[in-house]
Parts: sequence; C-alpha cells; structure tokens
Amino acid sequence: MDKILLGHGSGGRLMHDLIRDLFLKYLDNPVLRKMGDSAKIGQVKEKIAFTTDSFVVKPLFFPGGDIGKLAVCGTVNDLLVSGFKPVCLSCAMIIEEGFSLKELEKITRSIARAGREAGVNIVTGDLKVVERSSCDGLFINTSGIGRQTAKVNLDIKMIRPGDQIIITGTIGEHGIAVLSKRKELGFNFEVKSDCAALSDLLIPILKEDCGVKFMRDPTRGGLATSLNEIAEGSNFGIRLDEEDIPVSANVRAACLALGFDPLYIACEGRAVIFAESKKADKILRRLKKHPQAKGAAIIGEVVKENKAKVCLKTKSGGLRFVDMLAADILPRIC
Amino acid sequence: MDKILLGHGSGGRLMHDLIRDLFLKYLDNPVLRKMGDSAKIGQVKEKIAFTTDSFVVKPLFFPGGDIGKLAVCGTVNDLLVSGFKPVCLSCAMIIEEGFSLKELEKITRSIARAGREAGVNIVTGDLKVVERSSCDGLFINTSGIGRQTAKVNLDIKMIRPGDQIIITGTIGEHGIAVLSKRKELGFNFEVKSDCAALSDLLIPILKEDCGVKFMRDPTRGGLATSLNEIAEGSNFGIRLDEEDIPVSANVRAACLALGFDPLYIACEGRAVIFAESKKADKILRRLKKHPQAKGAAIIGEVVKENKAKVCLKTKSGGLRFVDMLAADILPRIC
Repeated sequence: MDKILLGHGSGGRLMHDLIRDLFLKYLDNPVLRKMGDSAKIGQVKEKIAFTTDSFVVKPLFFPGGDIGKLAVCGTVNDLLVSGFKPVCLSCAMIIEEGFSLKELEKITRSIARAGREAGVNIVTGDLKVVERSSCDGLFINTSGIGRQTAKVNLDIKMIRPGDQIIITGTIGEHGIAVLSKRKELGFNFEVKSDCAALSDLLIPILKEDCGVKFMRDPTRGGLATSLNEIAEGSNFGIRLDEEDIPVSANVRAACLALGFDPLYIACEGRAVIFAESKKADKILRRLKKHPQAKGAAIIGEVVKENKAKVCLKTKSGGLRFVDMLAADILPRIC
Repeated sequence: MDKILLGHGSGGRLMHDLIRDLFLKYLDNPVLRKMGDSAKIGQVKEKIAFTTDSFVVKPLFFPGGDIGKLAVCGTVNDLLVSGFKPVCLSCAMIIEEGFSLKELEKITRSIARAGREAGVNIVTGDLKVVERSSCDGLFINTSGIGRQTAKVNLDIKMIRPGDQIIITGTIGEHGIAVLSKRKELGFNFEVKSDCAALSDLLIPILKEDCGVKFMRDPTRGGLATSLNEIAEGSNFGIRLDEEDIPVSANVRAACLALGFDPLYIACEGRAVIFAESKKADKILRRLKKHPQAKGAAIIGEVVKENKAKVCLKTKSGGLRFVDMLAADILPRIC
C-alpha cells in the first residue's frame, strides 16, 4: 500500500495503524502517545497565548522547505512575535485520497525536524481523508499554545513616534521560492525560502527588557501589508527608507522580471520589530550575530505625520505611500 | 459581491474587510477583536488540555446542524470528555474560490450560536482561499484549550472490571442525518443529527467526585470503535448488552435498509461514560434529568475476560465479538 485510502480517515483500524506506523513513529512524545480526545498539558504558570494557521501552499515542496516545515514554523513564529514561547502544537491534516504515502512520510519527517529545531512537540492531531479532487493533495492546520516569555507585554499600543523599525533579514525569499517552483520561470538562479522558526533568534531578546515594543512576522501580503496593519493599529505613521530595506539580488531580479514589488512578497522566517529609539542599535547588533539575522537592518521609523499610513522614501529621493496589498498577487503562498 | 474570491485569502485589504464585516460581526469578543498574530488568553490556574479537529463534512448543511455547529461542538466535546471545560477555541477556514458569501454567513452565525451555547469564544482564526476545485466548498479546523474541571483525573488506566458503561443517548443519529441528506434515500422520515455541545450536561457531573473514571465521544467509527479503543487502552474486556443500547426506530430502520450496523455510525452529541459500579445508577438518574440525555442507558460493563476486546450479547441471546471499524463505511461524516 503506497497511497492514502479513504479508509485511512475512517477513525477505524486503518487510521489507527497509519497513526502508529507513521505519525507516532516520527512525532512521538509522552503526551501525543496517549492519543486521548485531548492532550493533557498540565499547568502553565505564565500567561498563555493561542494561535492557528492552515497551510495550503502549492506546491507542497519548494526550495528551502515544504508544507510540513512551513506549518510548524508559521505557528511557532506567530507565538514568538507576540512575545510567547511555544509550549506545544497541534497538527491536523486533510489529505486527498490517492496521496502518496512516501510524500506524507517525507512531510511528517519534516514536521518532526522543524519541531525539534523550534523546541516544541506536536501533542495532538487529527487526520481527515477526502475523495479524489476534493482537496489539492494535502492541507495542514497547526495551532499552538505559548507561554509568555517577553519581559514586557508586547502591544501595538506601546508604539510611539520615534520608535525604530527593524527587519531581521532580507525580504521576499519565501514568496519567490514558492512561485519559482510553481511555474517554469526560466530563472538561471534559485531562491531558497527563508522559512525558519525564530525561537533561537527571538527568545533571548524577549527575555530581557531590551526596548522591543511590538513584533510581527510579515507573511501573506509581505512587509507592506504588515506595516500597514501596524500603522492602522497604532494610529501613527510609518516612514520607510527604500535604500535600507534588505532585498537579495535574486529576489530583486525575480521581482523585476515578474513585475512584483518585493514589499508585498511573503517572508516565512523574518520578524519586523518595533523598538525604542535609543535601544534599536543594540538590538540590531545583537540580531546580526545570529546566522538567521545577518541581513537585519533598521528600515524606518514611526512618525507623527500621515497617521495610519506607510510612506516610503524611494531610492530616487521621492516619497510615496505604500498601501496594504489590495487583493492577491500570489495565492497559496502558505 | 456575493462570492468568495481568491483575493479574500490574500492577507490584504479584501481579507481585512471580510474579517471585519463577517467574522468579527458575528464572533466578536475582546480577545478576537485585537486580531494579533496570537490571541493573548491570560493566566489559567488549572491544568490545561489541548485538542484539534478538522471538519470536512459533506454536505455542509444537514438535518440538525451544519459544518459550523459541528466544528464547535466537536472540539468542545473532545475537551469535556477529557474532563476539561473549554476556555477558548480557534477557527481556521479553507474556502473554495466562488463559495457563496451567504452560506459563509449562515455558517459563521451557526459557529457563533454554538459557541454561545457551549459558553466558549472563538479567540483566534485563519482564512485561506484556494482556487476552484482545489477544495470541496469549505473545510473548518477548530482547536481548543480547556481547563481541568474534573474533580478526579479521567484516565483510561482507572478503568477496572465491574465498571459500568453508560451512553448518554441514542446512537447513530449524526451519521444517518448526514447520509440521508447526501443521497436520495427515499426514507419517509427524517433523522436529525444529535450534534450538540455537552457542556451543560457534563460539567456539573465532572465537578463532583461522582465515580466517573473515563469518557469518550463516539464520533467517527461510532460506539463500537470507541469501545474497542478503550478495551485496548485499558487492557480489559467490554461486555455490551444489545438490548440496552438505545437506537431510535428511525435510525434502526435506516440502518436496516442500508445494511449498516448502528454501532459503527457516528454520534456528535453523545458521551460514553465509564463509571464505578456502585455509582452508575446515580449518574444515570442524574443524566436522564437533562433534555440532552433522556435516552441515556447503562449498556454494559468492564470484564476480566476477553482482554482488549468488545463482546456483544445479542438480542437473540448469542455472543459475538464487535471489532473496530476496519476501513470506512461513511466518509466525510464530520
């Protein structure tokens, strides 16, 4: 048997065997192993946070990752940028009848590896199988619980004019990596997704009162959309300097060829950090010591003017407003 | 605009508007309203539990409920039968391009109503849109956090020979209700799904040390599969008395006509309770006072013989082993 059957989603013997032989094999831990209706986590002393994300990325495998790695990193990062350290994750799969068991195993291994790297276990799961053509291969939902690790409460309402805006690395790699795999674009270079869990990079910073006020991971809609959300939520303006925004040569070339603006292309391993003006340089130096944030940069600041808007000083010296992504340029990027 | 567009899943303006005008309109609460990367829940003093379920039921609307109600009740019940009271839920949707906004609104209202009835808020969510024919209308994942409310720790390892097995009502309504809607079966009667959150019924019982040792909700695979899991997990035998298992006349008639055994048909509003022998009658009397459990009955007991197996005393006086569901008789029942 090398394909997923409808019966694998029945709740019966076939499903139990698949769970034991595949999911428990790679994702085993004492809580998951109990296979109860709920996973008993025990007591968490700190405040907790909760997040969920479904992943429908197409194709399932792309340079730098796959849907399994993405599903773990995406949810881990949503907790981290909120100031919470992941306690545990859930993983629910919807699989199309006929899906390759070998690919499912590859993806499950990838989930296990990403979990180990991020320091978090999958403690509960679910599996549904739908008939052929009722879903496109495999969709994964991960939800996660985090415990507060930030010394201060990260809150959009803490943002003030003068705060510096840091990005932890070059933008747009994830979107371009997925896209390049989807179509025959004929580039003579490969862009790897930045997909990564930011636990190692962010937890040490969160544990101190180092001047971080707010963070977000610029995924769907890219940096421009995240910053617009923050400008609206804080009701201050944001001024960016195009020259300071790190974009790799390959992403820049791909965007030029495709007519995209890298500001709108999804990242899956970056955080945008709002920090007290005086402490921003120190945070930046610290970030740059970590391999995940060698390309980190201060890209702009919070201003009183142009409330709720994002304004970009272009390389040519002009100023233009950068709006939120209107609709979709890259569906199924995550 | 009366249809879901790919752009609704972009993370951009179109998605923000949909979230505000539809999801926040019906599901609004102070935590969800913040729309952060994670929902900040605060401190939970009790031990917590975590569970996840994806729902792919077909059709989306069926007698007695719809995918929205099902998604809330399913996750709430998974927490309750583990001895935990729901603290909050997440809700992640994968929607097919072209899906009716009117139906989405109906389902969202249904989620809101089910949440209110179960006493739990949706605090975080996610929305993905995939191209036409990449998913079958709408899939919903709900995950949930619960706080321990059971006075004693419910554990499969507490089960002992002599323990009585209670079902809180008639079995198989959900499966038959969904199936009857799926095909033109020509029945001259309607079976309504038993889909319901069991908060009201179970929380008062959990709060006392009333002799409950373990619970499960017999969903996919039905009562037979749940009991087989419990027999295997406890390593004792289970003896059922067919005469005592409550099955409505309509479910019985439908099963006869279709060649199904009601023991394998999913319930979505029932719990199977393992209780200390001496206290079982008292629990049963108490359950029967609640409108959701008028049909509750003691259906069997835990025995030393036939370890890890379920044995049924048939109405004709014979004995037969009841195995776990092998594969699937009713795909996409939840």
